[in-house]
Amino acid sequence: MITLGENQYGKSRVRVMKVERSDGRHEVFEWNVEVWLKGDFTRCFEDGDNSRILPTDTMKNTVYSLARSSRASTIEEFATELVTYFLMNQSQVEEAGASIRSTRWKHIFTDTGEHSMAFIQDGSVIETVTVTYPRTGPVSVTSGFTGMAILKTVKSSFAGYLKDKLTTLKETHDRLLGTLASAAWVYVGTDQDFVAARVRITNTLLDAFAEHDSMSVQQTLFAMGKAALEAAPEISEIRLQMPNKHCNLVDLSAFGQDNPNHIFVPTDEPHGSIEACVRREN
Amino acid sequence: MITLGENQYGKSRVRVMKVERSDGRHEVFEWNVEVWLKGDFTRCFEDGDNSRILPTDTMKNTVYSLARSSRASTIEEFATELVTYFLMNQSQVEEAGASIRSTRWKHIFTDTGEHSMAFIQDGSVIETVTVTYPRTGPVSVTSGFTGMAILKTVKSSFAGYLKDKLTTLKETHDRLLGTLASAAWVYVGTDQDFVAARVRITNTLLDAFAEHDSMSVQQTLFAMGKAALEAAPEISEIRLQMPNKHCNLVDLSAFGQDNPNHIFVPTDEPHGSIEACVRREN
Amino acid sequence: MITLGENQYGKSRVRVMKVERSDGRHEVFEWNVEVWLKGDFTRCFEDGDNSRILPTDTMKNTVYSLARSSRASTIEEFATELVTYFLMNQSQVEEAGASIRSTRWKHIFTDTGEHSMAFIQDGSVIETVTVTYPRTGPVSVTSGFTGMAILKTVKSSFAGYLKDKLTTLKETHDRLLGTLASAAWVYVGTDQDFVAARVRITNTLLDAFAEHDSMSVQQTLFAMGKAALEAAPEISEIRLQMPNKHCNLVDLSAFGQDNPNHIFVPTDEPHGSIEACVRREN
Amino acid sequence: MITLGENQYGKSRVRVMKVERSDGRHEVFEWNVEVWLKGDFTRCFEDGDNSRILPTDTMKNTVYSLARSSRASTIEEFATELVTYFLMNQSQVEEAGASIRSTRWKHIFTDTGEHSMAFIQDGSVIETVTVTYPRTGPVSVTSGFTGMAILKTVKSSFAGYLKDKLTTLKETHDRLLGTLASAAWVYVGTDQDFVAARVRITNTLLDAFAEHDSMSVQQTLFAMGKAALEAAPEISEIRLQMPNKHCNLVDLSAFGQDNPNHIFVPTDEPHGSIEACVRREN
Repeated sequence: MITLGENQYGKSRVRVMKVERSDGRHEVFEWNVEVWLKGDFTRCFEDGDNSRILPTDTMKNTVYSLARSSRASTIEEFATELVTYFLMNQSQVEEAGASIRSTRWKHIFTDTGEHSMAFIQDGSVIETVTVTYPRTGPVSVTSGFTGMAILKTVKSSFAGYLKDKLTTLKETHDRLLGTLASAAWVYVGTDQDFVAARVRITNTLLDAFAEHDSMSVQQTLFAMGKAALEAAPEISEIRLQMPNKHCNLVDLSAFGQDNPNHIFVPTDEPHGSIEACVRREN
Repeated sequence: MITLGENQYGKSRVRVMKVERSDGRHEVFEWNVEVWLKGDFTRCFEDGDNSRILPTDTMKNTVYSLARSSRASTIEEFATELVTYFLMNQSQVEEAGASIRSTRWKHIFTDTGEHSMAFIQDGSVIETVTVTYPRTGPVSVTSGFTGMAILKTVKSSFAGYLKDKLTTLKETHDRLLGTLASAAWVYVGTDQDFVAARVRITNTLLDAFAEHDSMSVQQTLFAMGKAALEAAPEISEIRLQMPNKHCNLVDLSAFGQDNPNHIFVPTDEPHGSIEACVRREN
Repeated sequence: MITLGENQYGKSRVRVMKVERSDGRHEVFEWNVEVWLKGDFTRCFEDGDNSRILPTDTMKNTVYSLARSSRASTIEEFATELVTYFLMNQSQVEEAGASIRSTRWKHIFTDTGEHSMAFIQDGSVIETVTVTYPRTGPVSVTSGFTGMAILKTVKSSFAGYLKDKLTTLKETHDRLLGTLASAAWVYVGTDQDFVAARVRITNTLLDAFAEHDSMSVQQTLFAMGKAALEAAPEISEIRLQMPNKHCNLVDLSAFGQDNPNHIFVPTDEPHGSIEACVRREN
Repeated sequence: MITLGENQYGKSRVRVMKVERSDGRHEVFEWNVEVWLKGDFTRCFEDGDNSRILPTDTMKNTVYSLARSSRASTIEEFATELVTYFLMNQSQVEEAGASIRSTRWKHIFTDTGEHSMAFIQDGSVIETVTVTYPRTGPVSVTSGFTGMAILKTVKSSFAGYLKDKLTTLKETHDRLLGTLASAAWVYVGTDQDFVAARVRITNTLLDAFAEHDSMSVQQTLFAMGKAALEAAPEISEIRLQMPNKHCNLVDLSAFGQDNPNHIFVPTDEPHGSIEACVRREN
């Protein structure tokens, strides 16, 4: 017999720009929202019975309507409001989920000072959150970021590794270490100061990356995750993805030139892929 | 105590172009390969002990060396060779995995006939496979595709859905139904005619999409998955992702023009996200 | 004194999906339209006087309204209608321009035959046109394509080139030649069978690429352009861009393997950039 | 007769990472370089005579070799060195050109202070330069940037524009004004403090964008260009591209909610395209 397995549906790429207008100073928030529902939709899939289907267009409307009435100042709070709304108002839903990707804007700042109502996009790091709310259990909030390009020019070696007949890599004690890092950390409970935690965790990850005496990307990843967990008692685990964006030293010997770690070719492909979860065990 | 959780590492975006040269006719295969290993790498992550780490650079070399010696004519076979090689040769590895994305090339064909040694890229659909090989268990082969843009101009309605106070969508019995479909099907066993199965499954999905009298994307997705399972006894389940790429009818009434389903605005965002697994139950 | 120089404004990424509905068979056209105006807009730029500014929103509306009423069956004709409309209706405009990028859809075709009202996107080649209409002069139509990935496995050498002290490239008489070609050809007059010309020119370019005994990308580019001009008396010149997408032979000698032009690494960066115009001189 | 018209060839996407190592502090520069040559290459294109062709592979080598020996600290100086080298060393070349796109890295900075040898990518703005050197004439240096996302929440209106029968846009005196700006300014002479000029011009453009009481994007663009020219006597003209990235106010009235310019939908398509050159006339 052929049956329906795991399934979900929702709306993706719902873009929201929210402007907070105080007298002398505005703030803007740009969010890219995805919402989804899980539940017993078997008759919809198998028989075309739409009576339990809240249209994805309505889900989009909900995002905008709640964005207007919400007092949320963080993506964590707004995503939580969204999943709570769907779970409370749709009895056929067994789990509601929402992910938000936030593009940061900051006030334009020049020598003439800060412009209180004009903004420039703040870097290429995207802040993320995923919130899920199963009817049976607590809300789960996972925050993080993606697209953080970081690089260090010292304290990175890779040696002592396993060699087989296809190994040609030379050991090194002084290489560039670059990555386009993504992180996602899981909160214990939802009553948190999400802004402060995000700043503290991000800074801890950056400090650990910069200061770690790296034997491998793996070891640096673990050191970063461990430092974040130590700095943030409010999280229980952190998942890090750190693709190794290789910077290859250029061989200039054919031109009679040395190259003492000055000129490199940064590459996107192929790249090492290192990812792991680091967690607190009780 | 802070410890290492799930982890893996490997090499991504290893690009291979393979040319098969027969006397009067060549064939080219373009593969984008990712390989990864799981196992007990705790001492590497926690202590910087690299003695059990096969470098990702060696993994890349392995892809090229095996590509040269391999007799595989499908991405399924080549991915299986890769994971088998890693599992057999690396005792510290508990599971090896490989994914391949294949860009198809076909012979250039014009009125003057076919050019046997010149090629043009064949469409934007990417053929995919993911093979995993845990030390404890059998090889698992999941094939599929991504990026298949399909569209139908008849037999698509959406009505009878749940309405709440935020619902503004109008019911329709004649809309465009477009999607950028991805599929992934799981084989029962690995001794298969992967080429024939891929053609049969893909054509069945296309036929079902075209012919289905759609009450919703969900229902069409299920009909497609069911048809594929019926046509392919060698697979046990199929996962389909069918984002609803909305084509919105343009309202021309302000200009004194009607628009009986002729002129639409195709959009990428926001879009509905519908995904489900359909499986055979014994 | 600081003054306004060359300027233009318009609307980009106006997406149109047009469905032609006959009784037994539909056709779909997907166009991405850009329109722009040039003229004396100095007072707008310098003084904020908008009285001669047709809003870009109106330009978008115009695209949709004309798409509905138009009988154009080609992007060349529709772009010409657009620029003619703007030039005829806006006396402040000195030149109107339109570019269209067309994504091709074809009927889904499987062993069960052709589906007359269901479609699949046809390849990744984008068909293009740019039409400009200056008030002083004739309409100019430039058609072409972009994104055509082509590759040949024989008849490509590169030798006898200039060597200086920084040259390390080895001469070769048997390499892969791959490119992501773009072409743009200029019609003599606008009363043309654009569909037939496009097919004839494209096929001629493909044949020439496949058959040419290439000493360099430059020579192959010229041979292709020359063949197109010979096959198409209705065009006066053709511009070709043929980035050299290098496929590098993998050196497997360290693994005791030969590699007689079987296994390559296709790369996107760096790449050679070769472009030229070929034209008919009277 | 069919002949060769304008043509050029070169190497694109030559990526360079340069690390400057002082005792206590490193700096990193990431450049994406394109170089090209023009000249009399007719016999190469028409006859396959490669004797005057410097291979693009050699051009790539030249970028790396000069990067090693160069004392250039700006992309303007390095691009000038490149074109000068090619013009001086290749007598068959009539004009050499180079473009560089620079991705900025800054030191990681947290509460614990600055990390002198660890870096994070600094925003998404790409700094650009194009330098051309014709044998007959002076070097021309055009600097700029691309990808600068800016937005203002006050002082933007659009009214008093031309209305025709297809105009539906409502006049507004309080809209969001957002753009993804590109700029390119031309230096008078090459003996400049390029770093200081870039900072001054960029800040002037940002200040003018923020403070301008905008009647239209066109007017704001001109005001920005004029301010830049006034602030930078070392440039003769500036070209600005300012696509109007519309933020559409969400109509929440169907849900009984007002929306006094709080909630918007940011969009990428369609978008207005406004570009102009502003120049100093003597």
